Amino acid sequence: MNKKSSLLRSQPISRRTIERWQGAEHRTTEDRVTIEEPFEIRVNGRSLAAIMRTPETSHDRELAVGFLLSEGVINDPASIIGIRRAVDQDGLPEENVLELELRDYLADDESRFERRFTVSSSCGLCGKNSIAEVCRRLPPLATDDFRVSAATLYSLPEKLRQQQTIFESTGGLHAAGLFEGDGNLRMLREDVGRHNAVDKLVGRAALDNTYPLSRHILMVSGRSSFEIVQKALAAQIPIVAAVSAPSSLAIELAEEANLTLIGFLRGTTMNVYNAGWRIM
Amino acid sequence: MNKKSSLLRSQPISRRTIERWQGAEHRTTEDRVTIEEPFEIRVNGRSLAAIMRTPETSHDRELAVGFLLSEGVINDPASIIGIRRAVDQDGLPEENVLELELRDYLADDESRFERRFTVSSSCGLCGKNSIAEVCRRLPPLATDDFRVSAATLYSLPEKLRQQQTIFESTGGLHAAGLFEGDGNLRMLREDVGRHNAVDKLVGRAALDNTYPLSRHILMVSGRSSFEIVQKALAAQIPIVAAVSAPSSLAIELAEEANLTLIGFLRGTTMNVYNAGWRIM
Repeated sequence: MNKKSSLLRSQPISRRTIERWQGAEHRTTEDRVTIEEPFEIRVNGRSLAAIMRTPETSHDRELAVGFLLSEGVINDPASIIGIRRAVDQDGLPEENVLELELRDYLADDESRFERRFTVSSSCGLCGKNSIAEVCRRLPPLATDDFRVSAATLYSLPEKLRQQQTIFESTGGLHAAGLFEGDGNLRMLREDVGRHNAVDKLVGRAALDNTYPLSRHILMVSGRSSFEIVQKALAAQIPIVAAVSAPSSLAIELAEEANLTLIGFLRGTTMNVYNAGWRIM
Repeated sequence: MNKKSSLLRSQPISRRTIERWQGAEHRTTEDRVTIEEPFEIRVNGRSLAAIMRTPETSHDRELAVGFLLSEGVINDPASIIGIRRAVDQDGLPEENVLELELRDYLADDESRFERRFTVSSSCGLCGKNSIAEVCRRLPPLATDDFRVSAATLYSLPEKLRQQQTIFESTGGLHAAGLFEGDGNLRMLREDVGRHNAVDKLVGRAALDNTYPLSRHILMVSGRSSFEIVQKALAAQIPIVAAVSAPSSLAIELAEEANLTLIGFLRGTTMNVYNAGWRIM
């Protein structure tokens, strides 16, 4: 197998020479694979997290901002007073390292977050050992007048699929879509890490000054875990829908937080695990 | 939505009352969901990692042992001199905490691992910023005489599916299977975290004194990431196959480590990304 790959920097895809087998026959051909690279987030000069992500330089800022918000490192995008790409000893940019400057980022907060991040990752583990801890930090959602129709919800998977640009050519990415109440797809992000895709959406909204996301629906291409629900809750997204199943802890957090949780959203069927009153 | 759930402790599944929607109609029904719970691994009295996993008391030991091996905290199962469930102040067992006693676990090793685990999780991020770091720790696989036939590889997905007990009833789990060279399924594990499923296989082999796993094939139900390849490499598994796509970094690590990497293994077709010489 040769090791050549040409990076298409406009798309996070690399071309690879592979052997394609069919039955007992095989031939050498070219395949497109999604790029996965480590990405480090530094806060006030110290490394906060290193996560695997699908690199797109234009999305690193939103990934970092979304990560800080959805993991609860900051509660307000205004806490961020600077974002810049790190430079190495020769003054050259480090492509996979972003430095953020936060105000009101206190040392005792830091030690608290260090503990939390001992086992954290983009994939979503934070060492939080209880729903109670999340709920202490993130108050339950309001019982407001945000409602969506079942027909709108049924339309989301197809809209997500139509916009998935990378997945169709590589089969290697998770997608997350942010929808408005009428079913309009506001934005879509794809990543090797499904939690990254959500962080990118949240971060983009924050960079666009449209955070929090109270009147929105989050739809993910795979399963919904505890972490997906937690990240939605941090951004005050009241409805989370997934193509596949939720975990028990995702349901329990949705129940505590008054969040509408939908699974197996396919065709004109869905399972509603909590807060069905938001569905008309 | 009511919050009742009856745990079926023999299976990591809980029953939930949900609303099942079909078109504009909905009715209340019961659904089965996979359980996700936090699990803490303590080493020599200190917390090493907290990961989300599908609890099965009988699998926690193998998950912890597999995690230590596949993350490189230990290289030899013999380093483990004690495993016990933690107890709380009242002397009652803590179901989700396991304490391991390691010999030759030095303080400076510990600080090294602390750094690594700063961003680690079951989902597989370790803050390792380069393939070089993995390869320094894990030497490439030997070019030995282990070969498998294409026909054997084509038979694996169906064998995995037939044995997947939980997935079919909940749709919420990832599966990993450990196969012998003739296609015999030695064991299968399922978990909400796909890296956990691999750790459980590795840990079980270690507990059974059949570690490392040089003459085996690892097959996973989803995608293959950098971390899946790394975990296989730590256990000296020479062939990794997946139903779906690998990431670019998974391919690069496979190339450096001389590991056979197969993707899109479906029916009688597959893509071979590296070291096709192990396929007859």
